[in-house]
Amino acid sequence: MTTHPSDNTVLISEVGPRDGLQSLKATMPTADKLRWIDALHSAGVREIEVASFVPARLLPQMADAADVVRHALTLPGLVVMALVPNRRGAEAALLAGVHKLTVPVSASAAHSLANVRQTREGMVEEVRAISNLRRDMAPHVRLEAGISTAFGCTLQGDVPEDEVIWLAAQCIEAGADESGLSDTVGYANPAQVRRLFRRLRAEIGDKAGAAHMHNTRGLGLANCLAAFDEGVRTFDSSLGGLGGCPCAPGASGNVVTEDLVFMFEAMGVRTGIDMHKLMAARAPLLAGLPGEPIYGMTPEAGLPKGFSQETQHA
Amino acid sequence: MTTHPSDNTVLISEVGPRDGLQSLKATMPTADKLRWIDALHSAGVREIEVASFVPARLLPQMADAADVVRHALTLPGLVVMALVPNRRGAEAALLAGVHKLTVPVSASAAHSLANVRQTREGMVEEVRAISNLRRDMAPHVRLEAGISTAFGCTLQGDVPEDEVIWLAAQCIEAGADESGLSDTVGYANPAQVRRLFRRLRAEIGDKAGAAHMHNTRGLGLANCLAAFDEGVRTFDSSLGGLGGCPCAPGASGNVVTEDLVFMFEAMGVRTGIDMHKLMAARAPLLAGLPGEPIYGMTPEAGLPKGFSQETQHA
Repeated sequence: MTTHPSDNTVLISEVGPRDGLQSLKATMPTADKLRWIDALHSAGVREIEVASFVPARLLPQMADAADVVRHALTLPGLVVMALVPNRRGAEAALLAGVHKLTVPVSASAAHSLANVRQTREGMVEEVRAISNLRRDMAPHVRLEAGISTAFGCTLQGDVPEDEVIWLAAQCIEAGADESGLSDTVGYANPAQVRRLFRRLRAEIGDKAGAAHMHNTRGLGLANCLAAFDEGVRTFDSSLGGLGGCPCAPGASGNVVTEDLVFMFEAMGVRTGIDMHKLMAARAPLLAGLPGEPIYGMTPEAGLPKGFSQETQHA
Repeated sequence: MTTHPSDNTVLISEVGPRDGLQSLKATMPTADKLRWIDALHSAGVREIEVASFVPARLLPQMADAADVVRHALTLPGLVVMALVPNRRGAEAALLAGVHKLTVPVSASAAHSLANVRQTREGMVEEVRAISNLRRDMAPHVRLEAGISTAFGCTLQGDVPEDEVIWLAAQCIEAGADESGLSDTVGYANPAQVRRLFRRLRAEIGDKAGAAHMHNTRGLGLANCLAAFDEGVRTFDSSLGGLGGCPCAPGASGNVVTEDLVFMFEAMGVRTGIDMHKLMAARAPLLAGLPGEPIYGMTPEAGLPKGFSQETQHA
């Protein structure tokens, strides 16, 4: 979190341009990405994970990462974030000039080995190396460690809570400025979300970071509400629910930004995002990905009669 | 609520056979309805709104109400509930032998006039007449007043909270045993749900009844969680999210029973319902409504690896 949100303000961190696009077969043309990011920014989104710095042969969707970052840096007030899996990616992202790095660190031993061929301890050392690199190259850049599979894993099932909290603390010790928890596969429930974020805050205090929830089993917003109740004030989501490994047709992965913003705004919690402009940002997304299914109940149903963001905050 | 649930138990009141079927163009054949109700009961569902007692010329889908009630009464441990809009319907339902009546009373003056051509005060008198009829014909039968449009209305927009609470209290004064709150059009948000159920409990104590939430804007489960946090222990939902006036293709109306039960069971809150058998109850529903779209994220994604209802409650 680059801001210090009060109790009545949350930061919506849009992950669509990275997490969303990365999981698709199609590659969105760079010009469309930029129009989409512009539309998000114009709606009031103030943190966007715009790219992933990984070898282009592995993820051709992210081959234009440096160009996308360069454009995003021109948008006033925007925190430009990139995912980096290792120090090589971090170096490229820092050279491109990002404001914030996020490193995924899997709490599931099985998932870590399968996904990045690293033990969890190995990933903590990667975080340390990235932190040192950041100190030397661009000390103002923030570093987040996102603890993935924090609520369960499709490979090993349960992930012990002690190991999740231990890993987050290790990442902070290794130099990360904040550590959030990700429900990578949509296994989380609200009781677990409350328990884990409470433990996380007890362990690392205000270095406790974002809630990255998935809607795979329909519990995405309920889990965000549970995290909000525990003091979490940064939430990852993606426009149209793009990405996040949907398991089945009709099953969105990432929490839908439109529905999440609607929930908070209707509650009187400020996001800084204009609902109408946010829904309008679906057009450039769809233009860049013709035929791709996108999700969102609020866009389909429309806003309630008489809904006004001014009224909600009065 | 016919049970007295502890903090760790909820009652899922399935409304699909009434609320779900009533809003469809198609009519499910009686034999299919009975197989569906049997499957729900077999999964552990212990309260079902099985029919609506209204003139068959208005709702041909409900023409077999008495037959459906007669069958449902043979299922051990099942609370057989019917919706009745007026005393004439109540008389028919009581003659059929239901255990519980529910009367919808709209908190929106505009919706009440448009929907049942009654003022709200007129509907309170209807509740009183039904309560007297119940006392004379079948004093053991429970009577619920469900306050519809309690969180907003597509006709008038905002519904003043004072009027919602006043109306619920009037219904209790008129003889209802309990009064719940319905988000008929999917306008509710978690802050409002907490506020209104807190006020309801302050006003009518343990006569505060069910939360009937819709998922029109994706907030259904978050709103159920909010109601649970305020002590609500009865939740209406419908298998496959059937009914509840979906506003748009892909936008389900009623909260999906499968996702709601999954949320509570994953949290360690007992519903008494077996997830696998509940998902199996989708087959007779689909058999009776060929081609009808049904919803549910958990059925599409499947249960988490290692998920066991025994483990969740251990």
